[in-house]
Amino acid sequence: MTVTPESLHRSRDAITPALRTALHLLDEETRHQAAYHLGWIEADGTPADGGGGKAVRPALALLSAQAAGAPAETGLPGAVAVELVHNFSLLHDDLMDGDEERRHRRTVWTLWGASGAILTGDALLALAQEVLLDCGLPTGAAAARLLARTTRDLIRGQVQDVAFERRAHVPIEECVDMAAGKTGALLSASAAIGAVLAGAPVTTVDALALYGQQVGLAFQLTDDVLGIWGDPAVTGKSVHSDLRARKKSLPVTYALNQGGTVSVELATWLSAPGEPDEAELRRAADLVAAAGGRDWATAEAARRMALGEAALRGVDLDAAARDELIALGHFVVDREV
Amino acid sequence: MTVTPESLHRSRDAITPALRTALHLLDEETRHQAAYHLGWIEADGTPADGGGGKAVRPALALLSAQAAGAPAETGLPGAVAVELVHNFSLLHDDLMDGDEERRHRRTVWTLWGASGAILTGDALLALAQEVLLDCGLPTGAAAARLLARTTRDLIRGQVQDVAFERRAHVPIEECVDMAAGKTGALLSASAAIGAVLAGAPVTTVDALALYGQQVGLAFQLTDDVLGIWGDPAVTGKSVHSDLRARKKSLPVTYALNQGGTVSVELATWLSAPGEPDEAELRRAADLVAAAGGRDWATAEAARRMALGEAALRGVDLDAAARDELIALGHFVVDREV
Repeated sequence: MTVTPESLHRSRDAITPALRTALHLLDEETRHQAAYHLGWIEADGTPADGGGGKAVRPALALLSAQAAGAPAETGLPGAVAVELVHNFSLLHDDLMDGDEERRHRRTVWTLWGASGAILTGDALLALAQEVLLDCGLPTGAAAARLLARTTRDLIRGQVQDVAFERRAHVPIEECVDMAAGKTGALLSASAAIGAVLAGAPVTTVDALALYGQQVGLAFQLTDDVLGIWGDPAVTGKSVHSDLRARKKSLPVTYALNQGGTVSVELATWLSAPGEPDEAELRRAADLVAAAGGRDWATAEAARRMALGEAALRGVDLDAAARDELIALGHFVVDREV
Repeated sequence: MTVTPESLHRSRDAITPALRTALHLLDEETRHQAAYHLGWIEADGTPADGGGGKAVRPALALLSAQAAGAPAETGLPGAVAVELVHNFSLLHDDLMDGDEERRHRRTVWTLWGASGAILTGDALLALAQEVLLDCGLPTGAAAARLLARTTRDLIRGQVQDVAFERRAHVPIEECVDMAAGKTGALLSASAAIGAVLAGAPVTTVDALALYGQQVGLAFQLTDDVLGIWGDPAVTGKSVHSDLRARKKSLPVTYALNQGGTVSVELATWLSAPGEPDEAELRRAADLVAAAGGRDWATAEAARRMALGEAALRGVDLDAAARDELIALGHFVVDREV
């Protein structure tokens, strides 16, 4: 079992009061739904003990400021802003995907309707910008600019993801590009925004952004491998869950793009109607592996982590913060495959 | 028939190429849906002749810069940004309200699903911030801050509007506050953002913001009067359209709050099930008028326009731009009641 990095505990302690302060700018109803979504209260307003996720993005933002030689506090507006954007995207994604549960709790749209999820998400996105622009640092506007561009990349990734479901053939480059937007963009911005707020040179900011981007892609590659071959006791999902949903994940898309009889058989399998049984799921998983999808995704995740680490080691950073950034990246990516 | 102010023609000419440039930052699919929504193309991509609305907000933003003594160009990033935020809110509102048509064309969600409307709206909101933060003016961040706060007010108004539909009793102050958010906030920001970009003193910005806010409220009061007593040949809506939908508009809310038998009869009428016939609609309109709802809304609209004009005349502004701002405000508000 992996030990939770100390940076995540510190991040959770720092971010919660700052997020609460930001949320006080919202109207009562929107704040209520946001607090529920974050796991702070139950739907009826009674206090809840929910963690609201691991706060990986705020931890990256705080370490990002420290890596650039500033105190963690300098990164705090960035930490709040990336967590707000992350939750904006979760609120809208849960509605669009029709997901009724998140972290074993009902999703906002199931409780307050589509309007609740849309408006609360919209409000968190606007609030993220406000937090940065009102933070009092002369670098706030540069951070806000980074976040606006990132939000556009995030949305572009989501648009591609929705479009891929309707397309028979998706080149692997496009699938990687989708993951770079949907998963990589906000992790990249998180790893860079603290340094932006600290006024770090562009080479430092770029190295941190690249690190976050690679962690995001490595995470998605690993998550997709776990979605097919992960142990349900560890992942908390059903066995072969992504195949059950006939999802064109990264290893599946890689396998489909190899050509040959295995790819054809896999494509036929994916387009078949109805609920697959266990034997069919095992067969599909074997086809993805036989076409090299599993090995490619595993190697690609490792390659991207090494690329990210090399970027961090290529610039002058606070050594302790850099080590914590690397440890956090591995915590996010390395899970029992 | 009112003559369209020259400022609206100038605004339309200036805003369209600038909006096109901004939209080029979006992915192809999102840009397609946005261009359709703006009336530039048909759903299949062929060019359309649609105007995409009157572009009142961009016209206010350009005049706002001129009123502060700057060229109209200084206000252009603000004009683009407020138009993007306006269309973000239309895309999400059409989905939440289930409206299938806007300006005699199918709405985005009916063509590209809920995901299309949500993601395209999200993208326009993020893009609005980006346009201001990347405009190259040192005042861009202040304009972005104004717009982020405005977006929060806009969403708050929409949240109140949704909540009011479920509430039996809404005090008139809350209903005015809702309209101040939903309609007033963005018109207020539009009238102020050019001056912010021009680096105008805070008293000038505040006077322009107050003018826009009052125009917004006067517009809503007038629109609500037209929604009950407007001539269908002029409004393009069915006769008594707001009463048909049993909408708690401003004159209706005023009437409900007067107490006495007329208010009680009106409340009973509003909570009745089923489709009202013409005689019932006429009876309801008479009840609103008898309780003073029509006279109050008409007088209140005039009072607010006078308040806004007085604010504009209380600060030092370019006289020609001020006159155009006042003419534009009247064009928006004064329609055949």
